[in-house]
Amino acid sequence: MKPMTKDRYEIRFAGSGGQGIIMAAIVLAEAAGVYDGNYVCQTQSYGPEARGGNSRAEVVISKEAIDYPRAVQPDLLLAMNQAAYDTNFPDLKSEGLLVVDASLVDQVPTGRIVAISFTKIARKDVGKEFAANMVALGAVAYLTQVVSLKGLEKTLTARVPEKTEKMNRKALHAGVKAARKVDLSALPHFVNPEDEEV
Amino acid sequence: MKPMTKDRYEIRFAGSGGQGIIMAAIVLAEAAGVYDGNYVCQTQSYGPEARGGNSRAEVVISKEAIDYPRAVQPDLLLAMNQAAYDTNFPDLKSEGLLVVDASLVDQVPTGRIVAISFTKIARKDVGKEFAANMVALGAVAYLTQVVSLKGLEKTLTARVPEKTEKMNRKALHAGVKAARKVDLSALPHFVNPEDEEV
Repeated sequence: MKPMTKDRYEIRFAGSGGQGIIMAAIVLAEAAGVYDGNYVCQTQSYGPEARGGNSRAEVVISKEAIDYPRAVQPDLLLAMNQAAYDTNFPDLKSEGLLVVDASLVDQVPTGRIVAISFTKIARKDVGKEFAANMVALGAVAYLTQVVSLKGLEKTLTARVPEKTEKMNRKALHAGVKAARKVDLSALPHFVNPEDEEV
Repeated sequence: MKPMTKDRYEIRFAGSGGQGIIMAAIVLAEAAGVYDGNYVCQTQSYGPEARGGNSRAEVVISKEAIDYPRAVQPDLLLAMNQAAYDTNFPDLKSEGLLVVDASLVDQVPTGRIVAISFTKIARKDVGKEFAANMVALGAVAYLTQVVSLKGLEKTLTARVPEKTEKMNRKALHAGVKAARKVDLSALPHFVNPEDEEV
């Protein structure tokens, strides 16, 4: 993967409590920061909007020191279920990229959208449905190029329990493989086709 | 424990990479947010200042929506080793509280400081040195009263692997027990005694 060149790249992961959203964000942040040498801020917020078992985590990656650490207008939104899409889609940049778990999100507009069945891949290719977070992380890494696969693998070694490392690594690669089939250049430039007409 | 009443309370945990600093911050944030009903932001940053195996995580807890999510001037600094103290002490509020792992930090000024041997307690009372993060979290919870022990326990159940839950819970209680012996009212009002003279 190429090193990132964009000044500031904002990512938001959203899903439900048990989907490992925060862990995926921490692995991404640590890889992009410690191993790839970027400035990175990784945040989760709790409050009335985060009730009801919803989970949300943000990663801001930059070549420069980061002034504001929140992903207010994400360049990429990963929605791991329908509620996560519904709640967070309005914040996505108009030229951002929406990535959804196609196994769990079915009502999305056509536009700059990548739908991959992360949970199904985790179940079928990795044997563990809860590894969907790492499948999604692999896909996000490949689609954004903001973090190296090598950095992610090194972080997994340092961060996850030894006995789950192989499984997590497998999930990561399954996500990269799934994302390789996506032709980003064939997508519209705007996540919401209506914006393009303006 | 009483619910927190302060408008905004900033906490920074600092230590080395393997000490579970980020996990402790996540458990604190989730407990204070999801279970105790506060607004909470939890952040870790990576950059040149975080190299060399240093780990840092921040938690901001508030009764109101949080505008700026970083702990720029912490009310409490937990330093789990000497380097963490040296680097982060200058940021601590003058009336803040410094909590250090007495097993690993030996050069600190006299002042508004609590020194508890978290690592030693984790080794002797819990049987696992790496549980020092949860011992420290228990102590921080007791000393600050910003989060309920019940919330922390519920979060542990949801967040850590089932087989380590009992151990983590034991570590948490060992930290509370150690902190109970501290008489905060006997401490000077300022973390740096020189500030008090001004």
